[in-house]
Amino acid sequence: MGYGWPAGARVAVSFTADVDAEAGWIGVGDDYERRLTSLSDGRFGVVRGLPRLLDLFEHFGIRGTFFVPGLTASLHADAVSAIAAAGHEVGHHGHRHRRTDRLDGAAQRSELEDGLAALERAGAPRPVGYRSPSWELTPDTFDLLLEHGFAYDSSCMGDDRPYWEHWGGRRILELPVHWSLDDWPRFGFGLDRGGNAADPAELYRSWLAEYELARDEGRHITYTVHPEVIGRGQRFVEFTRLVADLAGRGEAWFAPLAEVAAHVRPLLEDG
Amino acid sequence: MGYGWPAGARVAVSFTADVDAEAGWIGVGDDYERRLTSLSDGRFGVVRGLPRLLDLFEHFGIRGTFFVPGLTASLHADAVSAIAAAGHEVGHHGHRHRRTDRLDGAAQRSELEDGLAALERAGAPRPVGYRSPSWELTPDTFDLLLEHGFAYDSSCMGDDRPYWEHWGGRRILELPVHWSLDDWPRFGFGLDRGGNAADPAELYRSWLAEYELARDEGRHITYTVHPEVIGRGQRFVEFTRLVADLAGRGEAWFAPLAEVAAHVRPLLEDG
Amino acid sequence: MGYGWPAGARVAVSFTADVDAEAGWIGVGDDYERRLTSLSDGRFGVVRGLPRLLDLFEHFGIRGTFFVPGLTASLHADAVSAIAAAGHEVGHHGHRHRRTDRLDGAAQRSELEDGLAALERAGAPRPVGYRSPSWELTPDTFDLLLEHGFAYDSSCMGDDRPYWEHWGGRRILELPVHWSLDDWPRFGFGLDRGGNAADPAELYRSWLAEYELARDEGRHITYTVHPEVIGRGQRFVEFTRLVADLAGRGEAWFAPLAEVAAHVRPLLEDG
Amino acid sequence: MGYGWPAGARVAVSFTADVDAEAGWIGVGDDYERRLTSLSDGRFGVVRGLPRLLDLFEHFGIRGTFFVPGLTASLHADAVSAIAAAGHEVGHHGHRHRRTDRLDGAAQRSELEDGLAALERAGAPRPVGYRSPSWELTPDTFDLLLEHGFAYDSSCMGDDRPYWEHWGGRRILELPVHWSLDDWPRFGFGLDRGGNAADPAELYRSWLAEYELARDEGRHITYTVHPEVIGRGQRFVEFTRLVADLAGRGEAWFAPLAEVAAHVRPLLEDG
Repeated sequence: MGYGWPAGARVAVSFTADVDAEAGWIGVGDDYERRLTSLSDGRFGVVRGLPRLLDLFEHFGIRGTFFVPGLTASLHADAVSAIAAAGHEVGHHGHRHRRTDRLDGAAQRSELEDGLAALERAGAPRPVGYRSPSWELTPDTFDLLLEHGFAYDSSCMGDDRPYWEHWGGRRILELPVHWSLDDWPRFGFGLDRGGNAADPAELYRSWLAEYELARDEGRHITYTVHPEVIGRGQRFVEFTRLVADLAGRGEAWFAPLAEVAAHVRPLLEDG
Repeated sequence: MGYGWPAGARVAVSFTADVDAEAGWIGVGDDYERRLTSLSDGRFGVVRGLPRLLDLFEHFGIRGTFFVPGLTASLHADAVSAIAAAGHEVGHHGHRHRRTDRLDGAAQRSELEDGLAALERAGAPRPVGYRSPSWELTPDTFDLLLEHGFAYDSSCMGDDRPYWEHWGGRRILELPVHWSLDDWPRFGFGLDRGGNAADPAELYRSWLAEYELARDEGRHITYTVHPEVIGRGQRFVEFTRLVADLAGRGEAWFAPLAEVAAHVRPLLEDG
Repeated sequence: MGYGWPAGARVAVSFTADVDAEAGWIGVGDDYERRLTSLSDGRFGVVRGLPRLLDLFEHFGIRGTFFVPGLTASLHADAVSAIAAAGHEVGHHGHRHRRTDRLDGAAQRSELEDGLAALERAGAPRPVGYRSPSWELTPDTFDLLLEHGFAYDSSCMGDDRPYWEHWGGRRILELPVHWSLDDWPRFGFGLDRGGNAADPAELYRSWLAEYELARDEGRHITYTVHPEVIGRGQRFVEFTRLVADLAGRGEAWFAPLAEVAAHVRPLLEDG
Repeated sequence: MGYGWPAGARVAVSFTADVDAEAGWIGVGDDYERRLTSLSDGRFGVVRGLPRLLDLFEHFGIRGTFFVPGLTASLHADAVSAIAAAGHEVGHHGHRHRRTDRLDGAAQRSELEDGLAALERAGAPRPVGYRSPSWELTPDTFDLLLEHGFAYDSSCMGDDRPYWEHWGGRRILELPVHWSLDDWPRFGFGLDRGGNAADPAELYRSWLAEYELARDEGRHITYTVHPEVIGRGQRFVEFTRLVADLAGRGEAWFAPLAEVAAHVRPLLEDG
């Protein structure tokens, strides 16, 4: 399939950030509401990681997508404003960052609708894209996305090109993610769950390789970072190197997922 | 032991792929049937990983063995057809990818017989080789393999050469595997179980070293990949580099496990 | 913010060590009191790791902060003396290295007050800084720190600059830590919990990158090591290389956290 | 302390191997008795790993210590003979490789005495050294070692030099181990417990660094490998490189632990 990316670009690239902040931990369990260290680890994302990302993207004239849990929007309305003011897309990322597969249908509805309300209160435009917290999507939430008119989902992994994710005879436009294109499996660490301690240079090399494959195939690619994870030390140095390299090649259309969705939808409907 | 590989080859190499697809997760628990992200992560294997592997092997004129759970064959009959049409061997890999050591005897029988039936419905030749899901083999399944006339098993780790795996006075021809020659322990990742985040370049170096040891000993080697794991980004770049290097050396007989089994059986029976 | 570090230094660097010794395991559970191997693994920290660190810091004229659980001070009063005699700061690190988030309010009070008493018995000056065992801080312990007049806490992660950590309308001066600037997530290993097996060269590269970022921003940085972890083999070689490199650059003010706290407090109060 | 190693050597090096074989898994739980893959993974150690190690050590004229569980000796008496015939020391490593800290006193006694009996039946000399399975030592087993007249233990980590491990006013000569000098935390992998996937080149670099530190201090160093872990592919290539490098330097006394124990005991008693 020829995607005909804007301005003759050979590849489309979306940088996405999940701005979990405190919600990333509170979604694990209510006891985290009194765990000040864990909460502060998440908060670093909006205090330090987010400004670094915004500066980096501004420097290279790149607009991306920031998925913001409702709780993050409630606690940090300024972060939502800063994201939107810089021209980035704000996407839906649940409310308390609860895994949809651990909630019943009613609780999933609350997560979705509370998240929408919180984003609205924070002044964000109504989101057209959704990404499930911790990347598990249930049929219930799938149906809720259709009911609420979301234009795309970015939670599944069934392809590395935009595709239709199907369930029960219905479909939604999917702009897929993957663990290998996520900073969390490499560096995310918690006191109770541990985590890996990867070499940040591996992220640079692997993400550059994915870019080159995507470019050779002329397709789209979605990278995912967490401001509290990527926004530190050598990780941020390597990520900066990646962004600079990709921008310097002059081959890519850097776009928020919403714009990619709008571009590919008619192609997929014809295809 | 001199193996006398065909055409004077100095070493025999089998590339094997476990095409787990959705079954890789459903075998972990029934709740995965409603976890759309996990299911899609597995499905990537047949949608994208498998075609990449088939193209790669075709480019180098290599035939290998693809172990396919019955459920994968039921959901993706085209994948089975594509594998067989390219001249690769189709092996048995359970039905719902359930660990044999967590099933009673009757359930193990169902897994084996349901898998056979599903492969037949998908148009695959009757498999002569078996590989246990998640690589645990019980005495019950061992006996079922003999009862059903399988020519070889490829689930155990007792040697790095073909050997007889014994149990209760009986034996089966074993073409062994190992975690160090498997992509899953390096890269496999799940939301509940986590996983490692290895450097793909390590896979290249370690698998090349194994090749060189095997060649110096004149023996056989079995590599195992999962299409949904190896078929992404830098992992696939490094795996491609390995295949190209090995093919370029012109020393190896690349063969499906069934052909290796047929070749070594008389040697082991005499030995 | 301009910090105006002493002597025109461009960056402030604190090397901190958590001297967990046996308490690091006993805090996990009482059964460790009879697990001689685990206890000895911790004890290595005071027997071998601590002298190596003290020699290294002395060689480069660096003074740092050593957080010592009360139990460690009780078992190894000589270690406390050696630390203090070399001009380093001794900080509070709980008594039995119990996670504060797993204790009720009374037990948290005991941990804090027993730790103070043990440090006093070991001849340490009354500590002005606190670091929570395993790096989880609760509101109860937060309040206890204020009640006991601690000048700073070093347990949270909400910034990579000194900041006020708030709770319930109160605040404490925070000199933050992070997993990425800690040796434990890379190398810490236990029989029951496992751990990672990182490449020590990655620590060198990542910690050097953090230094360069901190210097470019003119801020403060806190590194955390565990004598029983960093004080071995290649890990100590790489850490020595880091300390030597940083000292050789002549740009940094190397200071115990207490001195950094005294320096930044008026700036933050004005800020 | 000057150790006065034989022949003017600057450092003493002991290569030790824990020949866990099937017992390494059976010690985890009885269900492993029917898990043929796991059993075969362990058995690889005696089938392939052990001969490779014996050949390597013979090539360089190195004698080491092999710790053999009683069950391994029962199942593989030939392995015990081969070890002893090559001049290596055979040490005690429990019977069914059960963690001592999970057994009551009577079961610990059985593990020790059954292991002794099995080694005797396999024709091994009565062992003078003990290493606890999975490296946890309890006071009960500590006392059993004294009662049975063992000359040394090699299960603890309280120093990187030979030392007295104390308990309850008694002591035993300890030739210490550590996770960082063990291949298992890097590469050991099990279906239920997972494991790390380290780069074998890291083992080479880290173990060489430990050698150089030990040589500069003139002390003793104990490396631990598992034949089923180290005896594969790139791992064995890197280990071979280490052994060759160390042997080529001509600085070391390579000795079984029993000989090191005999050498250092009078020095420690005087010290």
